[in-house]
Amino acid sequence: MVVGSGLLSSLAPRVERVAGRLPRRIFVLTSPEIWALWGETLSGSFAQPPIVLFLPAGERHKTLANVEKLARQMVSAGGDRGSLLMALGGGIVGDVGGFLAAVFMRGIPYVQAPTTFLAQVDSSVGGKTGVNLPEGKNLLGSFHHPLAVFADTGVLGTLPERELRAGLMESIKAGIIRDRTLVRFMEEHVDEVLGRDAKALEKVIAASVRMKADVVNRDERESGLRMILNFGHTLGHAIEQVTRYQALLHGEAVGWGMVAALHLARRRGTMTSRQAERLESLIHLYGPLPPLKLRAAKLVAAASADKKNVGGVRRFVLPVGIGDAGVVEDVTAAEMEAAAAYMLSRATERHA
Amino acid sequence: MVVGSGLLSSLAPRVERVAGRLPRRIFVLTSPEIWALWGETLSGSFAQPPIVLFLPAGERHKTLANVEKLARQMVSAGGDRGSLLMALGGGIVGDVGGFLAAVFMRGIPYVQAPTTFLAQVDSSVGGKTGVNLPEGKNLLGSFHHPLAVFADTGVLGTLPERELRAGLMESIKAGIIRDRTLVRFMEEHVDEVLGRDAKALEKVIAASVRMKADVVNRDERESGLRMILNFGHTLGHAIEQVTRYQALLHGEAVGWGMVAALHLARRRGTMTSRQAERLESLIHLYGPLPPLKLRAAKLVAAASADKKNVGGVRRFVLPVGIGDAGVVEDVTAAEMEAAAAYMLSRATERHA
Repeated sequence: MVVGSGLLSSLAPRVERVAGRLPRRIFVLTSPEIWALWGETLSGSFAQPPIVLFLPAGERHKTLANVEKLARQMVSAGGDRGSLLMALGGGIVGDVGGFLAAVFMRGIPYVQAPTTFLAQVDSSVGGKTGVNLPEGKNLLGSFHHPLAVFADTGVLGTLPERELRAGLMESIKAGIIRDRTLVRFMEEHVDEVLGRDAKALEKVIAASVRMKADVVNRDERESGLRMILNFGHTLGHAIEQVTRYQALLHGEAVGWGMVAALHLARRRGTMTSRQAERLESLIHLYGPLPPLKLRAAKLVAAASADKKNVGGVRRFVLPVGIGDAGVVEDVTAAEMEAAAAYMLSRATERHA
Repeated sequence: MVVGSGLLSSLAPRVERVAGRLPRRIFVLTSPEIWALWGETLSGSFAQPPIVLFLPAGERHKTLANVEKLARQMVSAGGDRGSLLMALGGGIVGDVGGFLAAVFMRGIPYVQAPTTFLAQVDSSVGGKTGVNLPEGKNLLGSFHHPLAVFADTGVLGTLPERELRAGLMESIKAGIIRDRTLVRFMEEHVDEVLGRDAKALEKVIAASVRMKADVVNRDERESGLRMILNFGHTLGHAIEQVTRYQALLHGEAVGWGMVAALHLARRRGTMTSRQAERLESLIHLYGPLPPLKLRAAKLVAAASADKKNVGGVRRFVLPVGIGDAGVVEDVTAAEMEAAAAYMLSRATERHA
């Protein structure tokens, strides 16, 4: 992972360094909007411009049918086992691009050039790729690690404010579960981070990525440790599902999911009320999170159907103090519902 | 890999041994025809019968759309990351089942129970899975090794004669490139093998699998050694493509491809004329291979578009004597055309 400003304009030599040599056919998967903004910058450093493949923006395009369509375009353009794919865009482009690279001719190398904050700190790290089914998100996919991730902080200047704030929820998550220094830094530098100060952003991104990469390296297949990355995601995913991925950005749903999980942690005594309040305040500092009008029981039902449940066991990530977390399997439906109810009360009062 | 008669009727304890324990949801992918023949035998040993998924027979069903359809059926039936898939059928069921297992929830374990000779000796070994695109076969896929392969020779009794003969071409291939003992055994036991004598079949299957597993273990990703498994496949694939996979079985096309490659080897001097004649005779002993009416130039053109060519380099597997082979990259179009022309002359005269 390389984090810095201006990486896109020198991508060719950077890719060459990790790939050994530049192959004859280099493809770039991107969205029309991102290509309009950064296509010229990226192409500039390549002797022969890469072959552009477009995926329209939006979660509904993250399908197996589109993977097939893109693969066929690659075959027609002369793509072979020696080709290389670059994914330039947000999380959806990264997930689809990674999966396309994973299955094209049984796997070709690829690099990630994430253009959103969320993709830079989260989805581009860890090798998870995939597409959705009508039944749920990321139900098909594989583990396929990019040769490298180039996080150009320069592209974040054009990112909408709401997306930046939502992405920062994953950094807060990183801090809560494994990095109290990051928690403190984010508490003390709210204005610099939200003001997109280059140094502050680099610091937050690098710390978030370091945390995730460390966890993933120890447990790629999510058999144990990696589960802690799902802190805030059990109820976060449930919120996304119940609102059909329309009302909230992923990071915002995770923000509310963390509020619920902190409440559960406080009830169980894995952290003090003061710690829980301090962390919930941090979440709201980087808010505002959108209001929610949902029923707690419905969220709990959706959470029970999550694909992370194996053999019917419901796993839940509980923070332990600040900077540590563990996985428990004995959370009752009643506890979950109480946590969801607390979160929903906060989600109404703040925005009523 | 377990080879033996009657394995299907004791599959549950065998699967349990390799999987640790039997998961709550066990799926079996098969074709309606195979299930009618062997479904009861297989289900008998399971306390709870496995959930059956059907893939219609035929290469045209080896599509990404079917993978999606099957995955959705699995989700609806409660499949999760802890589920297990069994592939009961020929090469197509094995390839699609393996790919489905590779991408379902980013990968679940699976076992192979191949029911054709070809699948037992070839496609179930090596971890290659995949589906076709309109542009070509197996263009999408992944490497995903089964927990185990159970080759029940008892099921071969119902296999059509032509399929058995075609499958044996892959065993001949195994012998030519790496096992002269197998070559001799097949020369000396034609009647027993074609008569489906249990001991003779087991011997041929076990030797073929051992050869392939050994090569694959040393080079899973086909960077070097594994390429030799493509002996006979360059022109074999070309024949399949030009005849649109209608006229010949895969093994038959490989049989003709080997005839061409043996000619090329004799011309290059990597084997004597006597050795080449002896090996070609062996191929015809297990024939007859169907006649061909094609133009050599067309085959050479199709071979040049093969996905095994990387960065435009045309690789070709040349046998060296009997029981050894190497990969060369300098075969000219003229040499290839001469080999194809020789093969086509044989493919006409024998059946005119």
